Amino acid sequence: MSSTANLHSLGIGLASTNSAGEVIEVFYPRPLLAPGTNLSAGICSALSCPPTDQVLKLSAAQCQNLIGYLDTVLPEHSAEISAMNQSGKQLILTMIAEDKAPGTVAEVYLKLHLLSHRLSKPQTLNLQGAFAILPTLAWTNEGAIAMQELSARQLAARAAGRTLQVNSVDKFPRMSDYVIPAGVRIADTARVRLGAYIGEGTTVMHEGFVNFNAGTLGTAMIEGRISAGVIVGDGSDLGGGCSTMGTLSGGGTEIISVGENCLIGANAGLGFPLGDRCIIEAGLYVTAGTKVLLLDRDDKPISILKARALAGKPDLLFRRNSQTGAVECKTNQTSMALNTELHNNN
Amino acid sequence: MSSTANLHSLGIGLASTNSAGEVIEVFYPRPLLAPGTNLSAGICSALSCPPTDQVLKLSAAQCQNLIGYLDTVLPEHSAEISAMNQSGKQLILTMIAEDKAPGTVAEVYLKLHLLSHRLSKPQTLNLQGAFAILPTLAWTNEGAIAMQELSARQLAARAAGRTLQVNSVDKFPRMSDYVIPAGVRIADTARVRLGAYIGEGTTVMHEGFVNFNAGTLGTAMIEGRISAGVIVGDGSDLGGGCSTMGTLSGGGTEIISVGENCLIGANAGLGFPLGDRCIIEAGLYVTAGTKVLLLDRDDKPISILKARALAGKPDLLFRRNSQTGAVECKTNQTSMALNTELHNNN
Amino acid sequence: MSSTANLHSLGIGLASTNSAGEVIEVFYPRPLLAPGTNLSAGICSALSCPPTDQVLKLSAAQCQNLIGYLDTVLPEHSAEISAMNQSGKQLILTMIAEDKAPGTVAEVYLKLHLLSHRLSKPQTLNLQGAFAILPTLAWTNEGAIAMQELSARQLAARAAGRTLQVNSVDKFPRMSDYVIPAGVRIADTARVRLGAYIGEGTTVMHEGFVNFNAGTLGTAMIEGRISAGVIVGDGSDLGGGCSTMGTLSGGGTEIISVGENCLIGANAGLGFPLGDRCIIEAGLYVTAGTKVLLLDRDDKPISILKARALAGKPDLLFRRNSQTGAVECKTNQTSMALNTELHNNN
Repeated sequence: MSSTANLHSLGIGLASTNSAGEVIEVFYPRPLLAPGTNLSAGICSALSCPPTDQVLKLSAAQCQNLIGYLDTVLPEHSAEISAMNQSGKQLILTMIAEDKAPGTVAEVYLKLHLLSHRLSKPQTLNLQGAFAILPTLAWTNEGAIAMQELSARQLAARAAGRTLQVNSVDKFPRMSDYVIPAGVRIADTARVRLGAYIGEGTTVMHEGFVNFNAGTLGTAMIEGRISAGVIVGDGSDLGGGCSTMGTLSGGGTEIISVGENCLIGANAGLGFPLGDRCIIEAGLYVTAGTKVLLLDRDDKPISILKARALAGKPDLLFRRNSQTGAVECKTNQTSMALNTELHNNN
Repeated sequence: MSSTANLHSLGIGLASTNSAGEVIEVFYPRPLLAPGTNLSAGICSALSCPPTDQVLKLSAAQCQNLIGYLDTVLPEHSAEISAMNQSGKQLILTMIAEDKAPGTVAEVYLKLHLLSHRLSKPQTLNLQGAFAILPTLAWTNEGAIAMQELSARQLAARAAGRTLQVNSVDKFPRMSDYVIPAGVRIADTARVRLGAYIGEGTTVMHEGFVNFNAGTLGTAMIEGRISAGVIVGDGSDLGGGCSTMGTLSGGGTEIISVGENCLIGANAGLGFPLGDRCIIEAGLYVTAGTKVLLLDRDDKPISILKARALAGKPDLLFRRNSQTGAVECKTNQTSMALNTELHNNN
Repeated sequence: MSSTANLHSLGIGLASTNSAGEVIEVFYPRPLLAPGTNLSAGICSALSCPPTDQVLKLSAAQCQNLIGYLDTVLPEHSAEISAMNQSGKQLILTMIAEDKAPGTVAEVYLKLHLLSHRLSKPQTLNLQGAFAILPTLAWTNEGAIAMQELSARQLAARAAGRTLQVNSVDKFPRMSDYVIPAGVRIADTARVRLGAYIGEGTTVMHEGFVNFNAGTLGTAMIEGRISAGVIVGDGSDLGGGCSTMGTLSGGGTEIISVGENCLIGANAGLGFPLGDRCIIEAGLYVTAGTKVLLLDRDDKPISILKARALAGKPDLLFRRNSQTGAVECKTNQTSMALNTELHNNN
């Protein structure tokens, strides 16, 4: 059957269910992108299931067969599944044949895992409708709880002399309770949603934030907010409290991004795609519609244009003239100086 | 006795006490506003207490009588009290005859519950002096702990091989550990205090914040800070990191509010009462004293006035001219355009 | 031996170790600055160790000897050590002979404790290289976990039907799990790192943040961010979301500070050392290089200079003229008015 040949992704995970038995969240310790024909076929054979789109609740017998099969081809995952199988919760298999709009909670969670495990980059997966599919849950010290069951659980905890700690009421969990990719620091994990892509070498400080389907492609210092859909290039620095406009807000259709080796100053803001080696000074918010006075190297005015006309252009410095109040843009002096130095070395 | 006829509110809850036996916080699962003569008299009769202002620590016998009485008139609450009665903690009855300045921790907590259960709107309850009445507590994974007992508890936990997680040291707990009203999302519950009023349909994102005696009256997207006393109208959007000046800070006597269907941009700020359908552009802070250049529809200057003169006026757009640096205000073009469209349909 | 005479500091604490037995974090309930010759010599005698720089893992016998010795000279600490000794974790003694760059995790933690216990003020201890010494750890509801052990622990928790809550992935823990100094409120403890110095009477609100080796010297209301190395004087108020530039960022060599009785407005920012009784208006970011129009009492222009030229000068008000867009600085009118009143009383 051809569908296994090009299976998009596959995950075997542990699911929480609500009192109606519906899957409300899934933990996949080892999501697989493009698992390949052999593995997919082998798993389907072990589970006696068709090699196609599905979310399969595994029976005890299926779990044993799966563990047995994987023991030879993917022993580490076999051990993980074996461990999860002791939890008393539901093990599931999720297969995505092709990357279309997800239809189930299990599929959405698999795609969010692919992003946070750095198997898929932001903006490369079809997540259309994901928001509506995910239920709002209470994320507590006793795990994920369906909203309609929450107040009873809160009362039961109080009655037992405890306080149920409700840390978040949201459609998305925090990433850190599912995976921490290698080589990152995240000072306050409440501020990074599952589905964020945090590049190796990235630090997200306490004031930083990263939404799902967004993130950093490499080393970065993030003390500002990376909104849904926003991608930040390698070597860039988002200052404390700075803002990037998300594709979900303001009805924007343009995807905001930050190039490589950029600096967005503290409390500044960005509303258009920023090229490489650009700087926005601290405290300045530049939206796509901000009128900008373009200056040459000698600070002579060239023209006035909207910031969106500078989308993707490299080596720009944005500042507000502290005496005229005009938003100005000029070629990044620091990198120019650097270039001059390099030339001098010739 | 006439006082039960107009009893302001009533709560039966579970109290934490410090080592001196003083009530330091109370959980009321079902606070009652204006409980009515019959219910109040019935409860007082069951408890053999006068129908007046009081905080009564219930004895085991009183608990049984109360449970028995409520079983017929308010069976769900009877079940809740029965459950709490098994906790080993102190059950209390709090009655507030009229809405005057609270005198005890139990009264303050009852009023904070009335707000967060959406029984009373912000700025409608007398909370004078509440701040001074509430003790600062350590809010931990082992519940509320009085400050003088904290270091001993921290050491005891370490000695037992655990770490006592002190999540907050504050007079107010986070709302989510007491109640989550229906139809809301709160991405990081550490940022919403008990006593916040979160309207149905409101999302408080990670960067959002809502203080006590403040909140949203309906659907809202809150990614900025709602300071103490500030009320946000239905359909409004507070952008990431935006600020509203609180009545507690700056000695302000004016109550800041946001009308319906407003948009305060990311990293912007507001220091005066904003009317309906107003916009403050991203990054612009408008205080009551900010001098604003008023423009007509054709961007012709009309006059310069302080922002407080525009308090409550609808359909305004506040922006900083990105070339002259002047803070300008003009009629909200978007809603004007909408009006024109509607007229064209006639 | 002379080194005990001037021992810089000493701590007896409980250490977490990774699977290789290396110390990864230490809790010192009672760090001692300048413990004095007698105490140091007594401890070393009880432990049969030299009175010099060292991190000593205490054996069971050493613990007993130490508890016995301290029972007479420091009975409260003896009781604490006795309690910690029951935890099954490693008790250690850390001695720092003189304040040089730390070489071990245990030394760095001792210095961070000295700061947060208010025994040493920020910027007075040698912390050179501390950042590189500290391992990045996962701070969880089950304690500190080494990164290489994290995914196994996450899986084990899921397998046991729990979720391991990873609250932070950082080199620094939050201060509140180690010490809460007297007389403070910290609304969201995730935002204050161990090594912060929080002065008595300081409130750190939800949006406030305090890095290590930074803090407030007295009463303060902190709703903005105190970056690494920044010191805030008594009586000052940092508005919601305001920013202070840190010595670690931007390659700055200048130490940013805020004087006494200052007000930095909400969403404002500071990039140079601010003198006493200064105000920066809400929403204005003043960096060291910002050109400022200096005004006299009658708002007459005097000169234009860079903000760094005003470093440390008292009684200044910084604002952006809301019509010309120019950043202006004039003598703080409020304090002038106050002075006039005082003179009138003569």
